[in-house]
Amino acid sequence: MDKIKIDNDAAFLYPMPMVLVGSIVEKKANFMAVGWVSRVNFKPPLIAIALGPHHTNKGIDENKEFSINIPNVPLMEQTDYCGLVSGNKTDKSEVFDLFYGEYDNAPLIRECPICISCSLYDAIKLPYNTLYIGEPKEVFTEERYMTDNQLDVKKINPFTLTMPDNNYWSVGENLGKAWNIGKRLKKQR
Amino acid sequence: MDKIKIDNDAAFLYPMPMVLVGSIVEKKANFMAVGWVSRVNFKPPLIAIALGPHHTNKGIDENKEFSINIPNVPLMEQTDYCGLVSGNKTDKSEVFDLFYGEYDNAPLIRECPICISCSLYDAIKLPYNTLYIGEPKEVFTEERYMTDNQLDVKKINPFTLTMPDNNYWSVGENLGKAWNIGKRLKKQR
Repeated sequence: MDKIKIDNDAAFLYPMPMVLVGSIVEKKANFMAVGWVSRVNFKPPLIAIALGPHHTNKGIDENKEFSINIPNVPLMEQTDYCGLVSGNKTDKSEVFDLFYGEYDNAPLIRECPICISCSLYDAIKLPYNTLYIGEPKEVFTEERYMTDNQLDVKKINPFTLTMPDNNYWSVGENLGKAWNIGKRLKKQR
Repeated sequence: MDKIKIDNDAAFLYPMPMVLVGSIVEKKANFMAVGWVSRVNFKPPLIAIALGPHHTNKGIDENKEFSINIPNVPLMEQTDYCGLVSGNKTDKSEVFDLFYGEYDNAPLIRECPICISCSLYDAIKLPYNTLYIGEPKEVFTEERYMTDNQLDVKKINPFTLTMPDNNYWSVGENLGKAWNIGKRLKKQR
């Protein structure tokens, strides 16, 4: 089939993980939905989130702390809501049941299967977004989301995002083991 | 249920998108499997990949160009193979059928539904990884991967990764529209 060139703006990942970034802005817990997020360093673990100019940024800039919460499918409506309204106009501090670890400015969402409190490692200004790199200090989960002492994505039941068509997707079937199923090719070559 | 604290090293995203990063190292096309990847800027579009110390880095550092290719499920074995062997010891230039856009140092994989050639925008040294931020210059796809002029994740048929359990997953069912399904909550509040 022939390759066609499409607009550069369509350069997204397929699909993107969805998180809720928590911060304290003007003494209120605030949450935003973020799909531009990635682990970026092995040791220490670092996670980067790319934020446009949002209400959340004020809290992170000021407190140097934030949280990353991974919502599951039952929280999709609340997550989407957090992406629809700005904390600048709407108080989102009561959308979820909150708890705190050691960091007072990293509000954690009890309903989320995974909650990570981060200290700010660096903030890198890009032309439009700011890349906030966080160092995870505490990772919270529950026994019911684990199998053999490891987080189990089918128990977590997260959802993913595609852009620019703006759709949410569940995680499908297990396809095999990474760093393993390529071994047959390795032997052949 | 009670929250438990687990090791910080477990701070991953669930699930992570998978890409093949292409580069030219010592005049040979080389590919590595990468799950630490995210869009990081709106305009211009920028995509970041977090690479440990790999053979690929030499090519990106030298040529300031690389490619991001999104493989589909039929390419899972080849993708995993690229993650198992280093270009330092193994020639991976013939694993895929290649083509090139305007950039001679961004080898593109014909079998991949989406192929993006990037120029290097910035390289940020983190304690272990280097965060290579690329500016997509050309995005290639095929008509068969699109619906109504937009990329269609079900036609693309990509796969995702979870760590540290090291599993690949398909994309599941459509769960609804982003920036939309939260509107009911918005009206209520």
